[in-house]
Amino acid sequence: MMLQTPYLLFLGDAPDPLAAKVAQGIKDWRPQYALGQLRLNGCRADMKIPDMTLADGLAAGARTLVIGVANRGGVISPMWKSVLLDALAQGYDLASGLHNLLRDDPDLVAAAHAHGRALYDVRVPTVNYPIANGLKRTGKRCLAVGTDCSVGKMYTGLAMDAEMKRRGLKSSFRATGQTGILITGEGVPLDAVVADFMAGAVEWLTPDNDPDHWDHIEGQGSLFHVSYSGVTMALVHGGQPDALVLCHEPTRTHMRGLPDYDLPSLEQVRDTALMLARVANPACQVAGISINTSGLDDDAFADHLATVEQRMGLPTVDPFRQGAARLVDALENL
Amino acid sequence: MMLQTPYLLFLGDAPDPLAAKVAQGIKDWRPQYALGQLRLNGCRADMKIPDMTLADGLAAGARTLVIGVANRGGVISPMWKSVLLDALAQGYDLASGLHNLLRDDPDLVAAAHAHGRALYDVRVPTVNYPIANGLKRTGKRCLAVGTDCSVGKMYTGLAMDAEMKRRGLKSSFRATGQTGILITGEGVPLDAVVADFMAGAVEWLTPDNDPDHWDHIEGQGSLFHVSYSGVTMALVHGGQPDALVLCHEPTRTHMRGLPDYDLPSLEQVRDTALMLARVANPACQVAGISINTSGLDDDAFADHLATVEQRMGLPTVDPFRQGAARLVDALENL
Repeated sequence: MMLQTPYLLFLGDAPDPLAAKVAQGIKDWRPQYALGQLRLNGCRADMKIPDMTLADGLAAGARTLVIGVANRGGVISPMWKSVLLDALAQGYDLASGLHNLLRDDPDLVAAAHAHGRALYDVRVPTVNYPIANGLKRTGKRCLAVGTDCSVGKMYTGLAMDAEMKRRGLKSSFRATGQTGILITGEGVPLDAVVADFMAGAVEWLTPDNDPDHWDHIEGQGSLFHVSYSGVTMALVHGGQPDALVLCHEPTRTHMRGLPDYDLPSLEQVRDTALMLARVANPACQVAGISINTSGLDDDAFADHLATVEQRMGLPTVDPFRQGAARLVDALENL
Repeated sequence: MMLQTPYLLFLGDAPDPLAAKVAQGIKDWRPQYALGQLRLNGCRADMKIPDMTLADGLAAGARTLVIGVANRGGVISPMWKSVLLDALAQGYDLASGLHNLLRDDPDLVAAAHAHGRALYDVRVPTVNYPIANGLKRTGKRCLAVGTDCSVGKMYTGLAMDAEMKRRGLKSSFRATGQTGILITGEGVPLDAVVADFMAGAVEWLTPDNDPDHWDHIEGQGSLFHVSYSGVTMALVHGGQPDALVLCHEPTRTHMRGLPDYDLPSLEQVRDTALMLARVANPACQVAGISINTSGLDDDAFADHLATVEQRMGLPTVDPFRQGAARLVDALENL
């Protein structure tokens, strides 16, 4: 899977900005891919990039119309569908991370076939991944591991990748979920891979590289989240990380979706993830801590970060508020 | 997936007894399902049960012809195929754990359709498993966890289940791999389940039960085997075990298929598996140790077991040589 860039971002009739978080991610992290936005009547999201028709986008060089918005009720509405069909007819590929797949819509399939265009459902693996072989690979890898799901692991990896590129260092963000894949145009939808091939898919995603190149592997789930811990484990072992960044959201009162489960402490995540990671890479170290302080106000967040930093003895930042410079410093100092 | 029992066991032209280990497992663990064996010219395996033609088997009540032998070169030979087509025509379902699927053979599909029979490829999930919800379930569960793959986890679970039934206790063996599924007629082919649903599949397999009922969950892989550890993790969290049995093969010099990876110690497996299992079930305990001593001679094995038992402070047996009575005692004493 490798999407054709640049993109025209389809925002549809997004009911609020949050519904367009995929488009926002692309605009924030790969602005060079985000030529313009296509909004329908009633759209309440705005990426602050040029509004374009399909024809405008093509003239500007766009190759793929990316559905950058969640749909309502799990269906592709007639209004959306007519835009998508037009896009195929005019020469766009379509890319989507929606649960309901483009490939399951006969009209879209027929139009794509008729016009020689591609439908990319980034939730669906398209590669026959190998079984992991555990062989040591060249290059360096950093994996974000969380106390819970949805605590900022993708954001942390993207921020570290951006900071390394800013410094002129060799760096790649390796997407393992649909938003990350749409942002970067490639990756592995790990939660949709068959169990036996999960770790092999992560090996495939992070191959041999220059000795001074860093892969920033997008984390998934948590070793302590009973629904998804197997996916996290495959990242820890298939990723063969040299460095871990611990990710946490301090205001959460229970594991996401599991009201009866407490969050683990950062110490538990550090010790467990490090011990397991060292099975695949005995040199693995914990480089730092990334805290999503969006639930704390401007007065409280800095105190919280300082307290955690002192307690854990590791550089502790909120990359959204502060950037990832100190985490990248930590990688460079390993 | 629930196979129709009893079975006629197809041994084909098995080149040696080891090739027929699926049939051997059925005969050893579910002899009431193994009405007879169907052998072709050149077969060098023998289950010591009556040789039957397809017609004999039907007359004796067999419902399913189970392919109890590995095939050579990953193809279903013309000789096998004519038997399988005959079986469908005469009224058998077919069940197979082969890599090459029955359902991918157009002739078998057509014959099954024509005769109203079913083709069971037990490597392929047939259920839309849920995402795990982590809710506490009633009943008791014991999970076999290994230092490595293929160290006797299935055997241990089957032996403990058999011993509990012998004592009149409530017990089920819960198969998670193709051999176990063919033996018991049902289960989840966990290594073929999509990542997001692994733990949910294990929850589905081991539902609420009587308070004094034990599920013996077939283990897979190892938390320390980098190729398959994600599958093991899903068993530890989805299985919500009350008890763990540690499984080990003492003569192995490296992890199976991974020449550069040492085996973990039993202490490492105990500590890691127990800590992770307690995320889902804080009451989980390690009940005992099962050692596959097939690589040790009659003089050495007892000494080895005694040494491990003293070192670990846990009942330590080879269930193949000694039965699983002491492991079941340990469950009863938890």
